[in-house]
Amino acid sequence: MLYFNCDYMEGAHPEILSRLMESNMEQTFGYGSDPYCDAAKEKIRRECHSPQADIFFLVGGTQTNAAVIKAFLRPFEGVISAQTGHINVHEAGAIETGGHKVLSLAGQDGKLGAVELEAYLEAFARDESNTHMVQPGMVYISHPTEYGTLYTAQELRDLRRVCDRYGLPLYLDGARLGYGLMAEEADVDMETVAAYCDAFYIGGTKVGALFGEAAVFPKGAPKGFFTLMKQQGAVLAKGRLLGIQFDALFTDGLYYRISAHAIAMAMKLKETLLRAGCPLFLDSPTNQQFVVLSTQKREILRDRVSYEVWQEREDGSAIARFATSWATKAADIDSLGRILGV
Amino acid sequence: MLYFNCDYMEGAHPEILSRLMESNMEQTFGYGSDPYCDAAKEKIRRECHSPQADIFFLVGGTQTNAAVIKAFLRPFEGVISAQTGHINVHEAGAIETGGHKVLSLAGQDGKLGAVELEAYLEAFARDESNTHMVQPGMVYISHPTEYGTLYTAQELRDLRRVCDRYGLPLYLDGARLGYGLMAEEADVDMETVAAYCDAFYIGGTKVGALFGEAAVFPKGAPKGFFTLMKQQGAVLAKGRLLGIQFDALFTDGLYYRISAHAIAMAMKLKETLLRAGCPLFLDSPTNQQFVVLSTQKREILRDRVSYEVWQEREDGSAIARFATSWATKAADIDSLGRILGV
Amino acid sequence: MLYFNCDYMEGAHPEILSRLMESNMEQTFGYGSDPYCDAAKEKIRRECHSPQADIFFLVGGTQTNAAVIKAFLRPFEGVISAQTGHINVHEAGAIETGGHKVLSLAGQDGKLGAVELEAYLEAFARDESNTHMVQPGMVYISHPTEYGTLYTAQELRDLRRVCDRYGLPLYLDGARLGYGLMAEEADVDMETVAAYCDAFYIGGTKVGALFGEAAVFPKGAPKGFFTLMKQQGAVLAKGRLLGIQFDALFTDGLYYRISAHAIAMAMKLKETLLRAGCPLFLDSPTNQQFVVLSTQKREILRDRVSYEVWQEREDGSAIARFATSWATKAADIDSLGRILGV
Amino acid sequence: MLYFNCDYMEGAHPEILSRLMESNMEQTFGYGSDPYCDAAKEKIRRECHSPQADIFFLVGGTQTNAAVIKAFLRPFEGVISAQTGHINVHEAGAIETGGHKVLSLAGQDGKLGAVELEAYLEAFARDESNTHMVQPGMVYISHPTEYGTLYTAQELRDLRRVCDRYGLPLYLDGARLGYGLMAEEADVDMETVAAYCDAFYIGGTKVGALFGEAAVFPKGAPKGFFTLMKQQGAVLAKGRLLGIQFDALFTDGLYYRISAHAIAMAMKLKETLLRAGCPLFLDSPTNQQFVVLSTQKREILRDRVSYEVWQEREDGSAIARFATSWATKAADIDSLGRILGV
Repeated sequence: MLYFNCDYMEGAHPEILSRLMESNMEQTFGYGSDPYCDAAKEKIRRECHSPQADIFFLVGGTQTNAAVIKAFLRPFEGVISAQTGHINVHEAGAIETGGHKVLSLAGQDGKLGAVELEAYLEAFARDESNTHMVQPGMVYISHPTEYGTLYTAQELRDLRRVCDRYGLPLYLDGARLGYGLMAEEADVDMETVAAYCDAFYIGGTKVGALFGEAAVFPKGAPKGFFTLMKQQGAVLAKGRLLGIQFDALFTDGLYYRISAHAIAMAMKLKETLLRAGCPLFLDSPTNQQFVVLSTQKREILRDRVSYEVWQEREDGSAIARFATSWATKAADIDSLGRILGV
Repeated sequence: MLYFNCDYMEGAHPEILSRLMESNMEQTFGYGSDPYCDAAKEKIRRECHSPQADIFFLVGGTQTNAAVIKAFLRPFEGVISAQTGHINVHEAGAIETGGHKVLSLAGQDGKLGAVELEAYLEAFARDESNTHMVQPGMVYISHPTEYGTLYTAQELRDLRRVCDRYGLPLYLDGARLGYGLMAEEADVDMETVAAYCDAFYIGGTKVGALFGEAAVFPKGAPKGFFTLMKQQGAVLAKGRLLGIQFDALFTDGLYYRISAHAIAMAMKLKETLLRAGCPLFLDSPTNQQFVVLSTQKREILRDRVSYEVWQEREDGSAIARFATSWATKAADIDSLGRILGV
Repeated sequence: MLYFNCDYMEGAHPEILSRLMESNMEQTFGYGSDPYCDAAKEKIRRECHSPQADIFFLVGGTQTNAAVIKAFLRPFEGVISAQTGHINVHEAGAIETGGHKVLSLAGQDGKLGAVELEAYLEAFARDESNTHMVQPGMVYISHPTEYGTLYTAQELRDLRRVCDRYGLPLYLDGARLGYGLMAEEADVDMETVAAYCDAFYIGGTKVGALFGEAAVFPKGAPKGFFTLMKQQGAVLAKGRLLGIQFDALFTDGLYYRISAHAIAMAMKLKETLLRAGCPLFLDSPTNQQFVVLSTQKREILRDRVSYEVWQEREDGSAIARFATSWATKAADIDSLGRILGV
Repeated sequence: MLYFNCDYMEGAHPEILSRLMESNMEQTFGYGSDPYCDAAKEKIRRECHSPQADIFFLVGGTQTNAAVIKAFLRPFEGVISAQTGHINVHEAGAIETGGHKVLSLAGQDGKLGAVELEAYLEAFARDESNTHMVQPGMVYISHPTEYGTLYTAQELRDLRRVCDRYGLPLYLDGARLGYGLMAEEADVDMETVAAYCDAFYIGGTKVGALFGEAAVFPKGAPKGFFTLMKQQGAVLAKGRLLGIQFDALFTDGLYYRISAHAIAMAMKLKETLLRAGCPLFLDSPTNQQFVVLSTQKREILRDRVSYEVWQEREDGSAIARFATSWATKAADIDSLGRILGV
């Protein structure tokens, strides 16, 4: 069986695992107050060209989103997101359990546009009953999005401009940030992200680590963020495990190298699927590929290739997601091609 | 100046006010444990043909919605509502501050349809990642809706059937219930509401009372509802003020009489506006009338007639809401007609 | 039956009720945006010598406490209160449902002392694991306290000094503020309260109004407070009802006059109970009197005089609370004396 | 430098680490739906003699406590805990951010007694204003406690009996459960814990794992617990990492073996400290030892031995915590003895 379901099916990249092993019996203090975390933070600050950045390591994406968003909002404020945003769909109400509404806008292909955002904010400002409504308090985007799509640097700049006009912090969910940064067409790098966002996170779980996300606040974190993390159950006792992994990811460009591998594999995968006659549902430049699988193709793949059904269609076909990762082998894509007869 | 902005511009119906005055210096215990509340509850139980109903009196609609919904949901559950539902738009996030997502469906003219509801629930049940999503836990409708529209008895029955199939309680926001029950075309009465809903509230604030809503649980209230109300800041110390008002409203059919008056006034208003050439935005059978006002008409009304602008349009026209109530005078509608030249 | 159970057994003072009646059929806009609210706010600002104060009217004490405290705190902060504080005991967890811990200190006779407060804050600051703990974010006191006791101006000044040193807002729950201000020994007036507190509320429910509390922020309210109130279900649709009542209370010193009456009655009550041989549980200068009733005395009062049992004792005696109010009649206290044989 | 600060200074026990390495490049589905989790759950069910138990793996203790407690409580209910309980002191308000009050009782040496619990519940039941108070909804204990102390089987039985009488679930925080089970005097084993508790967790983080806690519900988990975990940010994407670790811990009794080692080291440590003239603050049978260190002793240890200062005393002495773990070496305790001159 070949598995293309997602980018978190394996453990960690071997370079990371060996760092964990080497340090295993060392003794350090807990909760992130160890030299590994310090070193990793320093490396990330350099990547971001943000010497003043505050950085915190958390275990997973949902807890990172919940903690960061809660840290910025007042109780009566909500966070603006594309309808398809992860926080709006697949986090089981983590934002709402923290007391905040997700103010969803339609978006396009998973992206939130500056024009749409500004139109919403203008209409809100003009609405005579807006003091009876949830106040927009933050903007959430993901890069890549849940559909694998990317913002251009210009699009980020436009969002930033709107955020500035309305006094809103901009937050970028980078669960798969590496795959976004290394996409062939990408004109957004880490420094750009840090320049335009008030907060973002660098995803580790889906990009080579066993687990872990690095929340970055280029202009400094809201007061008391560590305690808020603790309150949210998002502080790891043996915090160094996160420091070690991120230190490894940002040593010798490992994060970028393995991301580039996943992109190369994704392009090969896309080309294979296209050659096999599977139309793209949308054209993703990153590690998640969305294609339409006919009933016949689904039959061929049954019991041989595993992928994620994104949407069942009435005629028996489906929109399917195939994901690559740092761990994907070219040989497996070749096998997929053979199964599909190409 | 003539005011048609809303149905809560005056105080209370004189019959209610005189009851409050008569009883003013009596001494009773607080928090709803007084004979007036008991009497009012008994009358409401009779209206509902629900001798087992639990009834609680609250001060306003937002706190009633928040308390009732919180009482039924588990933390990871959300409440389904039409996009335009009051809880989704104009309660400042009261449901979310209680920890729950409002799961909004498109609806039509403010109403949630059984077909749309069932389609959503079926798709949710089939979604392989649904354990990562907010679970549907309750259905919220309003009657009349925010657009003044009404459910038929058949539509309520259909919603009930879907709710039963999926094990969901059905909750009806009756902020303007009286105006819905007395609409000319209505085939839903209080008994019908009580038969199909697990909870609903009978609005007093907009139907003759100084303030107050009666939350009715025909099959009994969730355990601990009084304490939950207290926790939500929704228990009135001098609870009898609510009992006295609802006792008055359900003595000699006052609630229905004054609602019927508002409906008669609304139909007269509609007819006047139509004669004056103002097209209906939608055809409401209740006390809120939505019409399109041209730039010219708006100019004529300026400084003479006050109404609520529901939506500004680019060409300078607007969708406007005119509301009548128990307190509306026929003479004022005649004056409006004269101003509009009809 | 004579009732001394509490200070909210009657309706409203007749001057207030007549103001409500006179204005009943006037038309005003809702939610507090009416001339009555404006006038009442202006009068309160004058009483407080705080021309910049923001003032909001709410319906009850629990919702006021919950909204004000939530408005000041960050998610990981708690509010410091005496163990006996109303928010810590009798509000059903309203602070916690808003996400905040009540950090309770022992206090004495219902009061929180500056020395105790400072000792706690110093210990907290020195605690090496304090980032894992709820951060102190606000100080809550009540005046009079739940035991009827009062702070002196010097005690308020000392609390203020500690709050300033630690950057904490000071909030005073004035559910019975009038009775505190008019106590014979009181050296705290409204201006003093406004000078030392970041927020406080002037209780109406227990001091002559049908219902209502005026939240006062002498230095201005936290951003978005109205929307937060709306979210908490604490905005009254016919907001003028609150404005009218507070306008009446602060016209010709009504609030102080009726409070002084309650104090005079309380002192007469105290003297009567002492003469009858009922020892004081503590010596309260305000409208709540706490005495010890022997088994025999309880027997005498049974079916003739109603009071609140504060604490049952094993020997059959009890600590009892007797309350007076603006509505208490001297003749009823005389009757009580006769029943007790004095 | 010798470190006795806590039991989470190293990584994982080598047997666990090698299991993680071996499986690193295997592909499994996420979120705990993998064969390793299944196998680990089965082993734990056997240890508990609870074939019907539901088991979930979480990353840390605070998130486990928050999720389990939230799953059992209704919004207006609180959780009873000893004053010193971890949830009441060192989880930064995780329970309160979930909306619930921690109802703290004094306890003794970190333990909650059945007599104290019953007295509280009886008084609550008799309190006439108890519907205005947070309802007791669950009982939280820890074993070992924050002071290293243990419940006897009889004490658990007594707590269970009180819980049954009042319909309260009993929850045991087992962050250091292994050290409790293997204490020399312990008469509580895993089966006993499972028999008396509605929920408990088996701590991994402090007992040999890199991280991880196993929440066990012997009679089945509350409905929707997985989604609640997800909402709390407590679901690990690569869930198998938890399954692998707990499978290893419950293979060939590893959990018990390494716990027994820590206990042996703790007894050696206690004996060493006593011999050196350091009086016990309390007599702990588990891996945390609390002693009084004089100013002189603290001076001797400075820069050579690291421990946790539990409480500074005015005379310069301190209550100190020394902890052992699965990783403690006998030679280090010998070194400590030499430093102390014994």
